[in-house]
Amino acid sequence: MTPEEFRDAGHRLIDWIADYRINIEQMPVRAQVSPGEIKNRLPESPPEAPETIDRLLQDLDEIVLPGITQVQHPMHFGWFPSNASLASVLGDIASSGLGTLGISWESCPALTEVEQVVCDWMRQLTGLSEQWKGTIHDTASTACLTALLLAREQASGYSQNEGGLQSVPRPLVVYTTEEAHSSVTKATLLAGFGKQNLRLVEHEPTTRAMLPDALKNSIEQDIADDYQPAAVVASVGSTGVTAFDPVARIAEITSQHKIWLHVDAAMAGSAMLLPECRHLWEGIEAADSISWNPHKWMGTILDCALFYVKDSAHLIRVMSTNPSYLRSSVDREVTQYRDWGIPLGRRFRALKLWFHLRLDGPDAIRERLRRDLDNARWFAAEVEKTPDWRVLTPVNLQTVCIRHEPAGVEGEMLNAHTLAWVSEINQSGKAFISPAKIDGCWLVRVSIGVETCDREHVQCLWELIKSTASAGTDGFLMTNA
Amino acid sequence: MTPEEFRDAGHRLIDWIADYRINIEQMPVRAQVSPGEIKNRLPESPPEAPETIDRLLQDLDEIVLPGITQVQHPMHFGWFPSNASLASVLGDIASSGLGTLGISWESCPALTEVEQVVCDWMRQLTGLSEQWKGTIHDTASTACLTALLLAREQASGYSQNEGGLQSVPRPLVVYTTEEAHSSVTKATLLAGFGKQNLRLVEHEPTTRAMLPDALKNSIEQDIADDYQPAAVVASVGSTGVTAFDPVARIAEITSQHKIWLHVDAAMAGSAMLLPECRHLWEGIEAADSISWNPHKWMGTILDCALFYVKDSAHLIRVMSTNPSYLRSSVDREVTQYRDWGIPLGRRFRALKLWFHLRLDGPDAIRERLRRDLDNARWFAAEVEKTPDWRVLTPVNLQTVCIRHEPAGVEGEMLNAHTLAWVSEINQSGKAFISPAKIDGCWLVRVSIGVETCDREHVQCLWELIKSTASAGTDGFLMTNA
Repeated sequence: MTPEEFRDAGHRLIDWIADYRINIEQMPVRAQVSPGEIKNRLPESPPEAPETIDRLLQDLDEIVLPGITQVQHPMHFGWFPSNASLASVLGDIASSGLGTLGISWESCPALTEVEQVVCDWMRQLTGLSEQWKGTIHDTASTACLTALLLAREQASGYSQNEGGLQSVPRPLVVYTTEEAHSSVTKATLLAGFGKQNLRLVEHEPTTRAMLPDALKNSIEQDIADDYQPAAVVASVGSTGVTAFDPVARIAEITSQHKIWLHVDAAMAGSAMLLPECRHLWEGIEAADSISWNPHKWMGTILDCALFYVKDSAHLIRVMSTNPSYLRSSVDREVTQYRDWGIPLGRRFRALKLWFHLRLDGPDAIRERLRRDLDNARWFAAEVEKTPDWRVLTPVNLQTVCIRHEPAGVEGEMLNAHTLAWVSEINQSGKAFISPAKIDGCWLVRVSIGVETCDREHVQCLWELIKSTASAGTDGFLMTNA
Repeated sequence: MTPEEFRDAGHRLIDWIADYRINIEQMPVRAQVSPGEIKNRLPESPPEAPETIDRLLQDLDEIVLPGITQVQHPMHFGWFPSNASLASVLGDIASSGLGTLGISWESCPALTEVEQVVCDWMRQLTGLSEQWKGTIHDTASTACLTALLLAREQASGYSQNEGGLQSVPRPLVVYTTEEAHSSVTKATLLAGFGKQNLRLVEHEPTTRAMLPDALKNSIEQDIADDYQPAAVVASVGSTGVTAFDPVARIAEITSQHKIWLHVDAAMAGSAMLLPECRHLWEGIEAADSISWNPHKWMGTILDCALFYVKDSAHLIRVMSTNPSYLRSSVDREVTQYRDWGIPLGRRFRALKLWFHLRLDGPDAIRERLRRDLDNARWFAAEVEKTPDWRVLTPVNLQTVCIRHEPAGVEGEMLNAHTLAWVSEINQSGKAFISPAKIDGCWLVRVSIGVETCDREHVQCLWELIKSTASAGTDGFLMTNA
């Protein structure tokens, strides 16, 4: 494709995207397709002859769009917000158009240095001290794996450079809570620690925050049993109920025992743009690594996960490679981001943060986040004052965990009722919310914060929830009568 | 930013990208900046007020462009081709515009199923059998780490679900050659095997291909010494000199001992689009995993690394997570790509392959690859027939390893001479080539294959190389006289 052909097709595509975003509210929120339906509409064999952009745009409309759960839809309240702000989309487009190759500073100095600068801007915007150095990973899962590798190598005295994990005498142990994101367990397993060496520390039943005394006891017991504590992963805004582990008190314990403390703030990092929220990660300066995702609530399009460490020399020592064909005379003066993560090559991801921050401006972003917090408080208050409805966990941020608990509906019956009304709403395409299982019981997470979601959408959701759940109760009680 | 503001800015950006690609040949190939120069041109603090797209485009022109080593420039012959074909860029733009969230099939069925389909198209286009199931990773580094985790868990009977790697009695061993990509060592270390358990198997001195008998001996010796062979990583088109390990003979050995065989075809996978090149990975069907990067020579913009396995159930068993908030009623019927790699969330990467294959068509892609092979043969022949010049390794694909060896220049003097003329060319901005150190001696890799690189560019490079190296010799011999 020539640049002029690209210009023509590109203009059509930009219009298509703008129209898509304008019309999104008319689409069902949840994808309305069955498993295999999209696959079956695509040819089994690759194309022979070139096709036109018209044909591609038509397929985007007819095949792709119905197969998307519209996370940019203002009635999407599922999982966590996954905003793809259009300002950041422009940065992503610039990155694609440039087609740069990030394998060393020399291969694209701009890619490296803009990333350094925007990571530092984000550090300042979230109130972190200058001791933190950042980079952009794809996801918090990868950042968590990286953190646990750093912990493993710290605890084992760089066993990777000698006999590996098998040569380490005492079993290394990782601590987190049941409430932590699934990626913590995954990273523990992938880093080689083994499931038996993952401790799910007791949490407070209501807030679901880690109990520091329980952590302390668990660590001391392990040391007594000849285990070696290596890492604690604290959740700052957990995925289930947005729980906040008490970082300051945890850090006292990890500092004392020289245990790596990774703070997973994938979701709540965005909140730290607001000074009034920073008490939620009080003590953060004593952690060893932090990850958080601008690609969630803040809205810098996926994939954009920030990963900060204080000791970048340790990070580089664990992750570095230095092949001859990438060496250059400036190696000592520059940052080589290939030594800050798993992949060698990287896209010019910094551009999406750069565009987002500059085109929208931090004030507008902060204003939007405050709007969402306000909407969450409003919604929680509505739920609380309505009979048979409960807010189940503290509303620390913008996610509200609720349940409809009509009289006489309990246990498995209540679970079935909850899943039934959620499913009905999701299937309707009018809104999307996610159920989550906590202590064996299903609840419903209403996660507010899509960029285009205003109070009216939250009101609309609440009406929909009430009517669907009530109707469900009637039918349900009759069926089970 | 509203969709209408995006529309306006997007059109400007598309024009900017088209113009950039048109004018790229007028720019220096190598970035002409010093360490810190770009950083120093950017504000230390984040912006306060929103800025305009004009300002951003101006900064792209004035700050970013000078800081890019132009891998899309037809005179770029460095590293490996890293083509960002404009057809694939359009797919990437569509992905950005859609802003989908790939965390489960349900979150975006189209993302999952288009990825399944295009991975299968690529399988067919490279002549692999139906037993291979594919997914898209960011890079071959990540794919290699994944492969070694699969090997580790196969060899250890899923130790990750119990006591982890520390509970495995015999040290697990990984085999590759010195010629393998740096990511193999990195993955071995990150997966916990330890450097002492990485065997660099002897290679044939000229082709630098692994010697199967040496592999066999090494494995047998390890077994005798109570080590447990776990994985072999074979290079199909190595990064240094495009060496090809003999996959068929290696697979005989790994099959016999039930050792995981990962084939790193990051570069040479593109060549497998050409039936006449497939003898280069003969025996591939007996491997356990394969990775190759359409984002290299084939030109589907980074990041797009294909990862294929035969036993996807094993892959899922090692990589799976199943948190409650992602469970849905269709889980058993669909593919959950979060269980095929490290990150939970993924972009709609399949769109760039889908657009690339459909807009350009496989025929045009194959034609371009054949043009590059022909140019490499022409260039190698020119070098070979020129006095004082040598082609050092077999020209298996499109990379030609050469050296200027004027009479009387040897050893460290020759190294200094080689680095001097390469450096002069790279600094001139007229072309870019990468030196590489093989057995202690520097050689120069001329890697042909940028999408816009025609015979005239290769001719131009050869004239530049000859004149620069000769002039260098004169000066060099005088300086050292």
